[in-house]
Amino acid sequence: MTTNQQILLDHRPQGAVTADCFRMIETPIGQPESAEILVRNHWLSLDPYMRGRISGEKSYAQGVDPGQLMVGGTVGQVIASASGRFKEGDWVLSASGWQTHALLPEKQALKLDPDGGVPLSAYLGVIGMPGITAWVGLMTICEPKAGETVVVDAASGAVGSVVGQLAKGEGCRVVGIAGGPDKCRYVVDELGFDLCLDHRAADFVEQLDRAVPQGVDCVFENVGGAIFEELLARMNPFGRIALCGMVSEINGSLHTYTRMRSILVNRLKLQGFIVSDHMKLWPEIREQLRTRVASGQIRYRESIVEGLTNAPQALVGLFEGRNFGKQLVKLV
Amino acid sequence: MTTNQQILLDHRPQGAVTADCFRMIETPIGQPESAEILVRNHWLSLDPYMRGRISGEKSYAQGVDPGQLMVGGTVGQVIASASGRFKEGDWVLSASGWQTHALLPEKQALKLDPDGGVPLSAYLGVIGMPGITAWVGLMTICEPKAGETVVVDAASGAVGSVVGQLAKGEGCRVVGIAGGPDKCRYVVDELGFDLCLDHRAADFVEQLDRAVPQGVDCVFENVGGAIFEELLARMNPFGRIALCGMVSEINGSLHTYTRMRSILVNRLKLQGFIVSDHMKLWPEIREQLRTRVASGQIRYRESIVEGLTNAPQALVGLFEGRNFGKQLVKLV
Repeated sequence: MTTNQQILLDHRPQGAVTADCFRMIETPIGQPESAEILVRNHWLSLDPYMRGRISGEKSYAQGVDPGQLMVGGTVGQVIASASGRFKEGDWVLSASGWQTHALLPEKQALKLDPDGGVPLSAYLGVIGMPGITAWVGLMTICEPKAGETVVVDAASGAVGSVVGQLAKGEGCRVVGIAGGPDKCRYVVDELGFDLCLDHRAADFVEQLDRAVPQGVDCVFENVGGAIFEELLARMNPFGRIALCGMVSEINGSLHTYTRMRSILVNRLKLQGFIVSDHMKLWPEIREQLRTRVASGQIRYRESIVEGLTNAPQALVGLFEGRNFGKQLVKLV
Repeated sequence: MTTNQQILLDHRPQGAVTADCFRMIETPIGQPESAEILVRNHWLSLDPYMRGRISGEKSYAQGVDPGQLMVGGTVGQVIASASGRFKEGDWVLSASGWQTHALLPEKQALKLDPDGGVPLSAYLGVIGMPGITAWVGLMTICEPKAGETVVVDAASGAVGSVVGQLAKGEGCRVVGIAGGPDKCRYVVDELGFDLCLDHRAADFVEQLDRAVPQGVDCVFENVGGAIFEELLARMNPFGRIALCGMVSEINGSLHTYTRMRSILVNRLKLQGFIVSDHMKLWPEIREQLRTRVASGQIRYRESIVEGLTNAPQALVGLFEGRNFGKQLVKLV
């Protein structure tokens, strides 16, 4: 009998996350009982939100304490079932965490259709939590109108890439911001953004001025900090800002903002949101995204590492911007 | 024949406004022609927005340049008419500026009913632009629900006083913030707020902690700066902040904000607004406010100086918080 490999939080990071914050253990694999299923995980999702969960700070979500299994979204296959809803061989999406196997109550799993025209790994990215995040922030908070200028940072990432493609679909002029020329080229050439600026460029601010001659109507903000301030200074009256993340502050270094007056003068709406507050919308949005991905209207890219043991280092890389597209761990 | 006394902007303030930024001139009084009226102003309104108009900075509203008549809301009486809509003796509300007389196109004046159960000066305060500002920010942006905690700063002022009384009417717990014990007493004893904190008190932050044990759901923000930061740190999930003014930054000293992360973590909505963007709502809101004032449900206080020559010094006092309630200049 094989064992379940699990990665636990060993200790909280001080500042930047390091791989030694985690440790692996092996545990026996149980058998499903009343309305449970046993799942062999094939894909584990790595996401920026994980930094908050291991920080020990009070937050909107239950944190992970040292000694506990790391949380994470997974796609896997049912290998034993005591559930009327699932049979062996079914593919499921769940939040079963950093482990190779998971014993789950049936109601914690969502059955996936392997013939839906999209690879199953996409349910962790472009048509999963990150893609739905993009939709909620852009479509329900920014509400972009044709002809408006939309800016999104972390533009090649799992969320930003979908934001920009959705905004193009609404008839907007879309400017991405990403780290490095390769990502910028991908964002324009593959994803179809109008423009992408490298925030590491020495003349980034001048590039931004040239990129938004008509000002900015909508911002989908993943990064915060200095980039966000530059955008605040260029907002048009009645602009909308969906605040999705502040990855620049993710290791606890708080930026000081001086341009808040733009919110008053330009009558901006700045709204923070978290996609799990909008679970009722997920099935409809997922279907909208699936259709667009299946037809090729929305494209995406995955950054894959192999093996659970490499998950900690891949998470570190995510916070350093070393991933390119949705970061996944392939477990099988 | 008497002359029209007018106060012009002499030069822009450097930092704080001083009375010598203004000068008075006398000009001949014209006679109304085709669809014009001649108005003798009785009341001039002084308001925080005037600082922005004389700053020379690009803004949402047309600024006042040196040598131009100062802008301001006025209530006056028609003394000559070439308009079918108005006759001599009619009372009118207009934006005719810092002058004793005004020659106006008829469409720039709103006829007031002197028998409406409220003094006509109220059309410049509690049922005028400031009162309507309170309504728009509180009712359309904050949308407070019964039982929620609402905080408003500059609570004894023309806007804040109405915000708090409206919020009480919605069944909220209302905490005011004002400068000094006299204003705080007035806010609680006369206006019926649950509590009012003196932001000048040495233990203001501790007082605030005790005042909002359940956190803050809605903020009507008139001040910005350090007070706003303290409120940001105490917001409940899904809180709403109507950003109406940042009088703490009004002389050009920008505060640096470090607690923006609260907007993300607590999924706040922060929205700047300016009441003149909502002109379509004014007649309905004014009538709602007039009814409440006439019935005594909403109370207010005026701070009155006599004579146009005293307007500059009274404006200086407004920015120093020396007014108590709505600041008016009585011209007749």
